Amino acid sequence: MSTAAPRPRVVIVGAGFGGLAALKALARAPADVVLVDRHNYHLFTPLLYQVATAGVEPESIAEPVRRIASGRGRADFRMAEVTSVDLEGRRVVTPEGDIPYDYLILAPGSDTNFFGLKRVAERAHGVKSLSEAVALRNHVLRRFEKAALEPDAARRAAMLTFLVIGGGPTGVEMTGALSELVRVLQRRDYRGIDLGPVRIVLLEAADRLLLPFRPELSEAAAEALRRKGVEVVLGAKVEDAADEGIRLADGTVIVSDTIVWAAGVLGSPLPLVPEVTRSRWGRVPVGPTLQLPGHPSAYVAGDLAYLEDETGAPLPMMAPVAIQQGDAAARNVLRRLAGREPVAFRYRNRGLMATIGRNKAVAQIGFLSLRGLLAWVIWLLVHLVWLIGFRNKLIVLLAWTWDYFLYDRSVRLITED
Amino acid sequence: MSTAAPRPRVVIVGAGFGGLAALKALARAPADVVLVDRHNYHLFTPLLYQVATAGVEPESIAEPVRRIASGRGRADFRMAEVTSVDLEGRRVVTPEGDIPYDYLILAPGSDTNFFGLKRVAERAHGVKSLSEAVALRNHVLRRFEKAALEPDAARRAAMLTFLVIGGGPTGVEMTGALSELVRVLQRRDYRGIDLGPVRIVLLEAADRLLLPFRPELSEAAAEALRRKGVEVVLGAKVEDAADEGIRLADGTVIVSDTIVWAAGVLGSPLPLVPEVTRSRWGRVPVGPTLQLPGHPSAYVAGDLAYLEDETGAPLPMMAPVAIQQGDAAARNVLRRLAGREPVAFRYRNRGLMATIGRNKAVAQIGFLSLRGLLAWVIWLLVHLVWLIGFRNKLIVLLAWTWDYFLYDRSVRLITED
Repeated sequence: MSTAAPRPRVVIVGAGFGGLAALKALARAPADVVLVDRHNYHLFTPLLYQVATAGVEPESIAEPVRRIASGRGRADFRMAEVTSVDLEGRRVVTPEGDIPYDYLILAPGSDTNFFGLKRVAERAHGVKSLSEAVALRNHVLRRFEKAALEPDAARRAAMLTFLVIGGGPTGVEMTGALSELVRVLQRRDYRGIDLGPVRIVLLEAADRLLLPFRPELSEAAAEALRRKGVEVVLGAKVEDAADEGIRLADGTVIVSDTIVWAAGVLGSPLPLVPEVTRSRWGRVPVGPTLQLPGHPSAYVAGDLAYLEDETGAPLPMMAPVAIQQGDAAARNVLRRLAGREPVAFRYRNRGLMATIGRNKAVAQIGFLSLRGLLAWVIWLLVHLVWLIGFRNKLIVLLAWTWDYFLYDRSVRLITED
Repeated sequence: MSTAAPRPRVVIVGAGFGGLAALKALARAPADVVLVDRHNYHLFTPLLYQVATAGVEPESIAEPVRRIASGRGRADFRMAEVTSVDLEGRRVVTPEGDIPYDYLILAPGSDTNFFGLKRVAERAHGVKSLSEAVALRNHVLRRFEKAALEPDAARRAAMLTFLVIGGGPTGVEMTGALSELVRVLQRRDYRGIDLGPVRIVLLEAADRLLLPFRPELSEAAAEALRRKGVEVVLGAKVEDAADEGIRLADGTVIVSDTIVWAAGVLGSPLPLVPEVTRSRWGRVPVGPTLQLPGHPSAYVAGDLAYLEDETGAPLPMMAPVAIQQGDAAARNVLRRLAGREPVAFRYRNRGLMATIGRNKAVAQIGFLSLRGLLAWVIWLLVHLVWLIGFRNKLIVLLAWTWDYFLYDRSVRLITED
């Protein structure tokens, strides 16, 4: 009995930034490449907050995986939920059957990290998936519709108080965009209707926003948000959800119908068998070549991988790291296929940036600290270039141009039933 | 105690074609205008089948009502589900409170008519709402993903058999677009993957498609669909849902995971108190001025209104009738406000058209019977002109141009979780 295995098989788990970078690097690999994801699309997560704030259509930040894969060699795509990875048996396990591999590139990404706050997890909106972003948009717009029909001023105030927890890039970008959506709603949709005050509150546990940025950029971001009417509260530690909102460690209760959780992520809890010890934030420590210690056929890329830079600081959980690691892991697989040794991964830090709505952004590129219009234009261009799908680029560019010149947020739709 | 009522109040129920036409006509009315709908958007229903077949983004055929209303006088919008209308007390009843009216324009539209087939209603996909259309798109695309992982050929065949019931314009347009989506999937996404045959079956109970059209156009539509690989079955009466598909009156069982119901609609079952007798298809008979007999303050427009033309034939349940009736009802209200008598409504039939995918359509305009490219171009232009929202027009035009030149259906996303 002979079981012919003419070509080795490389399985990529996850069609996010890491997985797609690996797919691209493996385009002409002498191997069968299989990509597995539970969704049939790649999601451009950096623009999720714009979906949540009615700025862009959800479809415009999602690109069908098969469409991407058809342009990049002959990868086989399987839409399936990976339930575990058998590292000894070298099999990816799904409800639709096991997928054996010779080499594995594991890039499943991350989940929202609620830091064990169960009641908060039940009440809060995350911003990690397309459906979460659409649900948040529907929820925010519905608060205004409900407030317009609500006679009680205190209830209206709770409906129109929007809490965003976490002052990292996601929280900063979310509150900036939210303040612009609110202005459109107040000046247009509810013009002449007295709903009472609308509050947007950004809570950050540390003593400044945007911790990974230089302090002067944190200050610029806070100042820009405050000028947009956002209440920026620093040193605010969330203790638990209260019935009517959120309770801080100092006892303050903020009454609100809307809690957006942008305070952090955890590496995907996907079970690895045998389980490996995880480091902080549920990440899996990898060797310098991105290989899983003890399992040299398995590479980890992106948010799930724990690796430190030369200074001993963990690499951040963000798209540029995932892209570079996905590419590096795939190149190491190519080396192994060619009988060579894998090489160490080195992260090339091209900078950090966050936008704060119209004309404002902060960016840290090498020794440069940029703020204002120039940073904003760079932010726009970088995101447009990285967004996958030419038609998506056109639609997003149209949306941005439209909203910029008309001071609009067009996708003000409540699409749930 | 004096309750001042300085201006009369006109309440419009429904933000569909009829309601919006009424809103527009009342823009400068000496009255307070209140528009009520359970959604915050107007839906361009003629393009729902394109959402269901991954051709256009769902947001591009929906326009926020407040955005429309802000451009047309000072109408007050309330997002609420109307649960009944108290014709004696002249109040529209909603869970958020009653809305008294002096004049009422009732344009709640229609629901899917399953002709009492309960098991079919449970199993079938309707195409009346945005969420139904998105659910159908997700379902169809998921059938292909499931088939790609299914080892059993018979199960795969059921997954890849798509039944559309009802050969009116919706069924014809749906199957034409579905055949083009399937071709894109086969030639691109699943190229080189043998899924077995894909069947698209259009079932019509009558002996020809498009009953309201002239027979030669029915024949042209059937011929065009057959050339696209659609199995057109005439005289096929659906008896019930079978476990594995659908059973016809002649005993035939068609095995299929996908049943799309496009066989007809019923006037909205919105309770009117006191209940009025309803005519065929749950429609409410109105006088020639569109007034509800016995309730002269209440006008009915669109699918819910039952009115016959000069030949005694009932006016069809379609957008042009709703638009003209909404406008006429509003003008009659304006006459009453000016102390004049309402006038009789007369329908101006501007024709019928249905598209059958790329380059093909049938149109009946006066004595003209058009088919092929010219009819298709007219169809495109008419729909683009009637679609509300300039940004929507741009996005739909971009989508159509893209798909036309690249033989693509871009929105191939499975967005459910």
